[in-house]
Amino acid sequence: MAKITLLSEPDLRGLVTLDIETVDVIEEAFRTLATGAVVMPPILSMAIEPANGEVDVKTAYVPGLPGFAIKVSPGFFDNPKIGLPSTSGLMMLLSAKTGQVEALLLDNGYLTDIRTAAAGAVAARHLARADAQTAAILGAGMQARLQLTALCLVRPIRRATIWARDLPQAETAARELSESLGIDVSASTDAEAAIMAADVIVTTTPATTPILLADWLGPGQHVTAMGSDQNGKSELEPACLSRADLYVPDRLSQTRALGELRSAIAAGVIEADRHFPELGDIIAGTSPGRRSDDEITIADLTGTGVQDTAIANHAVRRAREARAGTLFES
Amino acid sequence: MAKITLLSEPDLRGLVTLDIETVDVIEEAFRTLATGAVVMPPILSMAIEPANGEVDVKTAYVPGLPGFAIKVSPGFFDNPKIGLPSTSGLMMLLSAKTGQVEALLLDNGYLTDIRTAAAGAVAARHLARADAQTAAILGAGMQARLQLTALCLVRPIRRATIWARDLPQAETAARELSESLGIDVSASTDAEAAIMAADVIVTTTPATTPILLADWLGPGQHVTAMGSDQNGKSELEPACLSRADLYVPDRLSQTRALGELRSAIAAGVIEADRHFPELGDIIAGTSPGRRSDDEITIADLTGTGVQDTAIANHAVRRAREARAGTLFES
Repeated sequence: MAKITLLSEPDLRGLVTLDIETVDVIEEAFRTLATGAVVMPPILSMAIEPANGEVDVKTAYVPGLPGFAIKVSPGFFDNPKIGLPSTSGLMMLLSAKTGQVEALLLDNGYLTDIRTAAAGAVAARHLARADAQTAAILGAGMQARLQLTALCLVRPIRRATIWARDLPQAETAARELSESLGIDVSASTDAEAAIMAADVIVTTTPATTPILLADWLGPGQHVTAMGSDQNGKSELEPACLSRADLYVPDRLSQTRALGELRSAIAAGVIEADRHFPELGDIIAGTSPGRRSDDEITIADLTGTGVQDTAIANHAVRRAREARAGTLFES
Repeated sequence: MAKITLLSEPDLRGLVTLDIETVDVIEEAFRTLATGAVVMPPILSMAIEPANGEVDVKTAYVPGLPGFAIKVSPGFFDNPKIGLPSTSGLMMLLSAKTGQVEALLLDNGYLTDIRTAAAGAVAARHLARADAQTAAILGAGMQARLQLTALCLVRPIRRATIWARDLPQAETAARELSESLGIDVSASTDAEAAIMAADVIVTTTPATTPILLADWLGPGQHVTAMGSDQNGKSELEPACLSRADLYVPDRLSQTRALGELRSAIAAGVIEADRHFPELGDIIAGTSPGRRSDDEITIADLTGTGVQDTAIANHAVRRAREARAGTLFES
């Protein structure tokens, strides 16, 4: 009989929060991706057209971590019509030594939200100016909130603007963030003004046509684009990538297929086979990050299995320390 | 909060057995694979070389079934050195309408054993002579036991031989099967004699060089080869496939890459692009099965995601009827 630790979403919300330790865990995963013998197979993806649904399965083996995660992410886009969230899912943690299932993390997508935001902080830590004080967040959903929170962990942000097409939504997010972060957060429907005033810009929308134009960018700015994680999505005008002094993908092979790089290649702005150092290379110091306060930098984050494996190990380690969760024998 | 049904291996052993209803469930899945809008993406596979391990993830959407399964199958081949089984794993059942996780089937591979054996019965039902009375089973492990049990559900088997290189192992299996099935089961280390005496032969070994030679086959025989499920495995001499009157893959694209067909193509015995109707086509009646008592037939079973989805739905349906399992909220 094997003993499996079951962790519910409330358990996990208590164990793992968006803090500097979580950011460090995710940074370490990117470093290993660049320097270690990581195994990260292509995503298993299945569309269920009759239900307007899809499911993705991601995994990665990260040397040095005791377990590897397998993450199941369903997206069923008619769910809101019947009062259910579009996305849900869970992670499993299996022993990297024996393959035994050690824990089931029934997080309904919570850990994905956290590891995605943490990657934004990692990108800002290595690419944004050290004195960045103003932020513009495009989008007003959960990930917009988390990205600003993550950014404040690593940069001395004092003012932020939340941009959304829907002003009341932006206002709600701005009010909440202003309270939780203790900084000045305002709402806006003027993307150009918000971006031109910002040291750091984070795009978090499911846009399929650009919402950030190259002409709006200026010296010293950093952009983290994390909305495009599928072929067909695109938040940045392709010319942004040629305008930037430094473009940094989380995983080059993935951003070529799914990220902002995909649309820049499709637009003919970047050659399809052009090489770019990855975020992990910059963390590891094998490639330079920002070289001056005047450079424009862009991070293109599509989400990687190493982040899932890192956060699942982190959550289970915390659970063992706290003796949290429910044991189930099978 | 979502309610998830947890089913342990003991729960599942009580709910799902190798019986004619299970065989019918698997047969129906193959029929749908041939005739319906099944979605079955390629297997996600990851090797973890430092631990001599691998993990496979399979899934399939089968129209008409309320859920789809995602199956995680780890194989860590040094586990026996520390007293653990090489294989383990679990299945999940997700709603095909909403993607919500409905049940976690912590079966440690039990349901895979059963659905694999049930496919052997389905193949024999459509390809073996109706009056088949003698069987030869190559291999003496769990799947050898299950395949003979499955065969007895669909054909009037009276005598069987269990072949293995290790005679005591074959004798143990023969004794157990003789008792459980009430038929005459003997053990042998002479594969040629066992095969030549048999109406139905089932190969269940992890052999990488042929253990069944074409010259040993005679009119009226049926062979089910289910040991080869990976590139590199091979139980049948390639000439068996050209000798046979009818070769039937479970999934042609898979047997070309992983099954006996792979080695026959590699040996130049079969053209790489030759078309063969699948087991589901024969079940559905769109292709003929055995046409006379003299034909030699071969079924090449590599295992398919539709079988997993079918047995997971079957198990959860049985669990709901019996109010079995443990509810977990998350």
